[in-house]
Amino acid sequence: MPDDAAAATGRVVLVGGGPGADDLITVRGLDRLMSADVVITDRLAPVGLLTRLGPHVEVIDASRMPGQPTLTYDQITDVMIDRALAGRTVVRLKGGDPFVFAHGAQEVASCAAAGIPVEVVPGVTSATAAPALAGLPLTSSEGAAGFTVVSGHLHPDDPACRIDWSALARSGTTLVILMGMRQLPAITRRLISDGVAAEAATACIASASLSEERVVRARLADLPTAVEAAGLTNPATVVIDTTCTLAQSGSARLSEPGRTLAARLPTKVSG
Amino acid sequence: MPDDAAAATGRVVLVGGGPGADDLITVRGLDRLMSADVVITDRLAPVGLLTRLGPHVEVIDASRMPGQPTLTYDQITDVMIDRALAGRTVVRLKGGDPFVFAHGAQEVASCAAAGIPVEVVPGVTSATAAPALAGLPLTSSEGAAGFTVVSGHLHPDDPACRIDWSALARSGTTLVILMGMRQLPAITRRLISDGVAAEAATACIASASLSEERVVRARLADLPTAVEAAGLTNPATVVIDTTCTLAQSGSARLSEPGRTLAARLPTKVSG
Repeated sequence: MPDDAAAATGRVVLVGGGPGADDLITVRGLDRLMSADVVITDRLAPVGLLTRLGPHVEVIDASRMPGQPTLTYDQITDVMIDRALAGRTVVRLKGGDPFVFAHGAQEVASCAAAGIPVEVVPGVTSATAAPALAGLPLTSSEGAAGFTVVSGHLHPDDPACRIDWSALARSGTTLVILMGMRQLPAITRRLISDGVAAEAATACIASASLSEERVVRARLADLPTAVEAAGLTNPATVVIDTTCTLAQSGSARLSEPGRTLAARLPTKVSG
Repeated sequence: MPDDAAAATGRVVLVGGGPGADDLITVRGLDRLMSADVVITDRLAPVGLLTRLGPHVEVIDASRMPGQPTLTYDQITDVMIDRALAGRTVVRLKGGDPFVFAHGAQEVASCAAAGIPVEVVPGVTSATAAPALAGLPLTSSEGAAGFTVVSGHLHPDDPACRIDWSALARSGTTLVILMGMRQLPAITRRLISDGVAAEAATACIASASLSEERVVRARLADLPTAVEAAGLTNPATVVIDTTCTLAQSGSARLSEPGRTLAARLPTKVSG
């Protein structure tokens, strides 16, 4: 893309807003947001930041709420390109990271096809932030040599499900499941039948980093019941210690001044 | 831990500093850093930020350089606890996220055992930031339903290696390998023998987010040669599209004003 075209048109910046708290966006992300002419925001983005924008900034809500009419992805992209071609700086503010379950790649491709410069500002994905805030390490020097982040929105037996759960069960990595609340009973059963110990330590973190954050810990076999009893709902992150090694190193418990983790646990089920 | 103990002693904050660029730390992380009395830093932390600290701040370099004498983990923890017990606010500044290959859990456990309040501030891990900055999506709506982050510092045949590479090869997730430069030929051979296509798209991103950032793209079979020819070294992130689906959606290419991706590619090997 030639520089003079970039100068004549505006630009698009995809900003990863982090897990939700206003101050878990990166410094670069906040800088780009504050210099935007147009902000296209999402339901899971740190929307508290929008109150800091000047009155001249156009804010477009592209939240996709279940069961409600909203902008289609094509419409969002059209608006983005339209504003950028008019010479404006467009910030697409997303929750988490723009390239982790966030359609960022399609938006980059569409802008590139229209000759619009695009910058991507990485963000803290809730896949790592939620466990960190709950005091759960994803790796340990003795056990889990890595972690796997998957979307759990499909039933494991759904033909459209492209995840090999039995491979993940024996991969030697900690599992982090996003968007998996509805299929949690089926996923749990599947992992146990694929060889993960029913006693494996797990946690479910809802609304990570927000004031309404809640954490439930349970052994794998009890997780769906514990989550339901506590009334946790999306957005939530599920962590499963398939290697059964994090519990030891994970005597790690996050404590905050004046607020212990115990006080934050609405339900605790132990084997 | 009782609140009065927290008031009498200092505190420890583990801060994820992000991939390396000064402005890819979170707003909260920067805030904690600027209020520190003592900063214990690492080689991969955003050390450019240290120049902003006041002259009264004690800065301790805990870098672990290969082959050089340095503080042991126990010594680092001892210093951290010693300073906090003396009533000071200690920030442990790490690269990436404190709970992703960063020994954060052990440090939290040690502080907790000493009765010191600990806060964890998540950071952007290079596992997601490096691909995002290079324009590589980790997931796509048609293909990869997730991604797996592993440490590649051990040979796949090493008895100490706890990763089931053949499981990862068929997991349906994109692979992100950290610390894998030395074992890259062995890992590549292993993945191909385990069924990943020799033509699978891959990328290696060295020094992501820093001025010396370099990106090499190659098909899987050619990756080790391409990386060696380009002279890439650690710290580097390797991305392998095991599902062979990201290349399409990944027509995504990061462009920056005045700097195209092509100019940043020292080597491009295509099948």
